Amino acid sequence: MKAVVTGGTGMLGKKLGKALLARSEITKIVLFDVVDPGDTPKDSRIEVVVGEVFDPATIAKLITPDTGAIFHLAGVVSAGAERDFDLGYRVNLDGTRVVLEAARKLPKPAKLVFASSLAAYGGDLPDVIPDEFRLTPQTSYGIQKAMGEMLVADYTRKGYLDGRSLRLPTIVVRPGKPNLAASTFASSIIREPLAGQKAVCPVSADAWMPLLSPRRCIEAFMRAYDLPSSDWGWNRSLMLPSLDVTVGEMAEGLKRHSGAKAFDLIEWKQDEMIAKIVAGWPKRLDSKRARKMGFQSDTSMDELIRNYVEDDMPKAA
Amino acid sequence: MKAVVTGGTGMLGKKLGKALLARSEITKIVLFDVVDPGDTPKDSRIEVVVGEVFDPATIAKLITPDTGAIFHLAGVVSAGAERDFDLGYRVNLDGTRVVLEAARKLPKPAKLVFASSLAAYGGDLPDVIPDEFRLTPQTSYGIQKAMGEMLVADYTRKGYLDGRSLRLPTIVVRPGKPNLAASTFASSIIREPLAGQKAVCPVSADAWMPLLSPRRCIEAFMRAYDLPSSDWGWNRSLMLPSLDVTVGEMAEGLKRHSGAKAFDLIEWKQDEMIAKIVAGWPKRLDSKRARKMGFQSDTSMDELIRNYVEDDMPKAA
Repeated sequence: MKAVVTGGTGMLGKKLGKALLARSEITKIVLFDVVDPGDTPKDSRIEVVVGEVFDPATIAKLITPDTGAIFHLAGVVSAGAERDFDLGYRVNLDGTRVVLEAARKLPKPAKLVFASSLAAYGGDLPDVIPDEFRLTPQTSYGIQKAMGEMLVADYTRKGYLDGRSLRLPTIVVRPGKPNLAASTFASSIIREPLAGQKAVCPVSADAWMPLLSPRRCIEAFMRAYDLPSSDWGWNRSLMLPSLDVTVGEMAEGLKRHSGAKAFDLIEWKQDEMIAKIVAGWPKRLDSKRARKMGFQSDTSMDELIRNYVEDDMPKAA
Repeated sequence: MKAVVTGGTGMLGKKLGKALLARSEITKIVLFDVVDPGDTPKDSRIEVVVGEVFDPATIAKLITPDTGAIFHLAGVVSAGAERDFDLGYRVNLDGTRVVLEAARKLPKPAKLVFASSLAAYGGDLPDVIPDEFRLTPQTSYGIQKAMGEMLVADYTRKGYLDGRSLRLPTIVVRPGKPNLAASTFASSIIREPLAGQKAVCPVSADAWMPLLSPRRCIEAFMRAYDLPSSDWGWNRSLMLPSLDVTVGEMAEGLKRHSGAKAFDLIEWKQDEMIAKIVAGWPKRLDSKRARKMGFQSDTSMDELIRNYVEDDMPKAA
């Protein structure tokens, strides 16, 4: 049986590809993305395919009758969808529809796991968000993710596929370099000091962040895939559990792990624009349903940092 | 300035056309729909245009640079979208996108009022639904309405239009004949006895219904249109207030209005399938925000029946 990962050459896509290698029922893993940076896991069962997700002909060749599992992670990121309105809808909405339509044509309904995001929340938010809270996103990216969840739910209800959507918390620590995302500092303030480098923290120490490590995130994707359809029932969307900490607590975790010298590499320099964006994000999540379904967050900053050190931190030469 | 009403020859569209005649700023009213039954209000300012809402060329000719107001009511109804999955998405989702894209091209952002529905709620619902409750629709129609609300919110946030979405309660009393909607009995059990005819009630007397008369509904559309953009703020979706009554209370209202003889024309004959559908609908709405914004429901069954008698009931020959 073939597994398809869209957004497959991204940070999470590659890790997912690796995790899928452990599954005996999966004989082929296709990592689909707009680029192939050439650093995907090397294995005879893994193939990289490059193309645009919103092109029906491309996706028809990707999601072939032997496909039993689809992990739909492809998407234009938040800042990109905000900058280019049409591109955001083409990739994040039309692209999702193309993937779902291809899945609908399969001889047997495939399992499909969709990566949604906390960006699906917005507007006036309570300090702690319960499972039943409305999605009123305040970015095009969030709107497109919320619409994707709805499509996955409807295609599932109709029996066209067996869908499961996960609303991902902020993924920290991301390996590699800082990017243009407003949340990039949340990884930087851990990752850079661990490498003996300075990092700027643009928000104050009392700002809340709901975090999930890449390791726990991949565990969640696999758990979402493994759970029987009946465990999901009518509700195919799930807010994942997170480690809800303040940025100050994140820095304290770094200090416990690497000492005051690492802690002192964080330069606290407020950036009003980023601070304002972060203030509009969900602070804490009461992910009752996900925890009841066995999904787990990192239990402490110590664990979250350890997961990065073990999984992704470049080893000293 | 031109006003466009999609779904303009339907029951609410025609009433909206009539209400818009009272507005001096509106010099032309186009009622757009898939059919022209020939019973639209006669006025030199009113024009009926027939076409498909999902056709960009048709809509480009409809939403021309002089358009300042758009009331988007067109849609395949619940049962239709459930029966024909592709048609539902083509009309209710693609059609809405075509309308929004045409509005985006206008020289000055138009006011756009979108008719959403209580069908946007679904799954496990509390007895009383608060404004902040999630939309997890359990029909394709509800999914498409919820997605329409999201698009209206996003196009508004980007400054492409000035949108307002109204989640309509069950509209009662609808004039005319019963239709295929599961909710059709809610109008029949009032309308038919008032005309001296029998009506079957397929649900038990303790079933809850959130109601709104066509008169109050049109008032709500006009209020949604009139309120300044700042009164809406970031949240462009509104659950309208409703008269929340049990079907038994509806029948009691009929008895108060027309006596025991009319009441006795209701035949209580449970239909398990319809009873099950109705049991899944919202029961009572706590529409705090709408009431604060000045939207009003009918205050009693007496008023709701009176509104029908005055506005729509055929006069005895």
